[in-house]
Amino acid sequence: MDLADARRIIDAGIGEADRIQSPSNIAVVDAGGSLVAHVRMDGAQLGSIEHSIDKAHTSVLFRSATGDLAQDSEPGGQFWGMALSGLGRVLVFAGGVPLVVDGEVVGAVGVSGGSREQDGAVAEAAAAAL
Amino acid sequence: MDLADARRIIDAGIGEADRIQSPSNIAVVDAGGSLVAHVRMDGAQLGSIEHSIDKAHTSVLFRSATGDLAQDSEPGGQFWGMALSGLGRVLVFAGGVPLVVDGEVVGAVGVSGGSREQDGAVAEAAAAAL
Amino acid sequence: MDLADARRIIDAGIGEADRIQSPSNIAVVDAGGSLVAHVRMDGAQLGSIEHSIDKAHTSVLFRSATGDLAQDSEPGGQFWGMALSGLGRVLVFAGGVPLVVDGEVVGAVGVSGGSREQDGAVAEAAAAAL
Amino acid sequence: MDLADARRIIDAGIGEADRIQSPSNIAVVDAGGSLVAHVRMDGAQLGSIEHSIDKAHTSVLFRSATGDLAQDSEPGGQFWGMALSGLGRVLVFAGGVPLVVDGEVVGAVGVSGGSREQDGAVAEAAAAAL
Repeated sequence: MDLADARRIIDAGIGEADRIQSPSNIAVVDAGGSLVAHVRMDGAQLGSIEHSIDKAHTSVLFRSATGDLAQDSEPGGQFWGMALSGLGRVLVFAGGVPLVVDGEVVGAVGVSGGSREQDGAVAEAAAAAL
Repeated sequence: MDLADARRIIDAGIGEADRIQSPSNIAVVDAGGSLVAHVRMDGAQLGSIEHSIDKAHTSVLFRSATGDLAQDSEPGGQFWGMALSGLGRVLVFAGGVPLVVDGEVVGAVGVSGGSREQDGAVAEAAAAAL
Repeated sequence: MDLADARRIIDAGIGEADRIQSPSNIAVVDAGGSLVAHVRMDGAQLGSIEHSIDKAHTSVLFRSATGDLAQDSEPGGQFWGMALSGLGRVLVFAGGVPLVVDGEVVGAVGVSGGSREQDGAVAEAAAAAL
Repeated sequence: MDLADARRIIDAGIGEADRIQSPSNIAVVDAGGSLVAHVRMDGAQLGSIEHSIDKAHTSVLFRSATGDLAQDSEPGGQFWGMALSGLGRVLVFAGGVPLVVDGEVVGAVGVSGGSREQDGAVAEAAAAAL
């Protein structure tokens, strides 16, 4: 996951976000969970800056799309309380997607700013550019 | 959002809080989420100091009344777990209201100290003074 | 230390800050170190918001003007390292002044935004209004 | 400070960092201190991710190049201990530079990864592209 990869992924995300009119924050992290690049699109809300970074971070740490962690972390779920861990950096709502090459997680992209469907669509479009 | 604006907003909030006998903390932040002014009314509880500031902060960051964020952040909601993000500074219960001019969020007011209905009423009265 | 006291103290600080042209953040805390009121004057820098609150907090906690704590907390001083304590909320540079009535610390005022001399002058003018 | 501005500033920084062979993290924040964009160049150290963001943040909050804050925050300086405030986000070593238009701070760039001279040179080159 080098900077050129990250920027290509981010630009693909920006393209989709523009298309569906959902101004987003988009972040890419490497296999260790460390930030490689981030953008806040014009008009994207401030609260989504950290969310985009933390969704990418969560995706790498648990090798999952963040939305897939929701049910298990609800009351009654097998990982109930997980959404409160990591000093608040573990996010379990949609928008974080792992980047996988040959079965290996090489990083993740995190998107925040729209609805569950919008963030998910932008993240998928971004990840497809890897 | 200058200090004169913030003080006028706060004074309107104090007026309503006195009327409904709900001693409150009232905070105003600017469009970037930074504090402009805060008051703790006589008799208001200490735990509400940070709550008033964080509600205003949350309102600007997500361009929403804080109470409107509650349902989406509950288990099963599209942003489940959001109430646990932001190092605990994201509050999703009533009392934070964005201040909007010509469709732009120029700041927010946050009120804490009473019930959901009381905090909401004081915040609405405060915001109306912009 | 009620809100009327805090506002009178803050207004005296604003008057002096205007006079010496040093746009300031001014905070008043009670005897327990809890915030009673805060203002950010127009043009005051954002970094001074927390500093004003933390200076007032420090002044009450150690019953000292913050500037008087500097030397002791330097390398070689009897409280070396103190400036690193309190999760960063202990500030040892000028601008925090305890408010004393009949020998009892009843609160403190914290001022931040200018030079050592400016913050000190505004804090002294504010405290004199108690 | 929109995303196009931030990317132009970052690309200018990357150009200089390549020229002097100092792989860097480069971050741009807006006038409120909120992140607009960040990149970690290939080969840049992980510890500099947060440093680049926090240097930009510090520059906006105190309207200063970060390196200019060093002397005042040393033992004996008028702001001794300032480097320990802000939950560790106040950085007083070189690499953060405010972005100024018509005398107004509109944002800042933060660079981290090299020596004081290298970070300063990359930050200056980046800021010149505003």
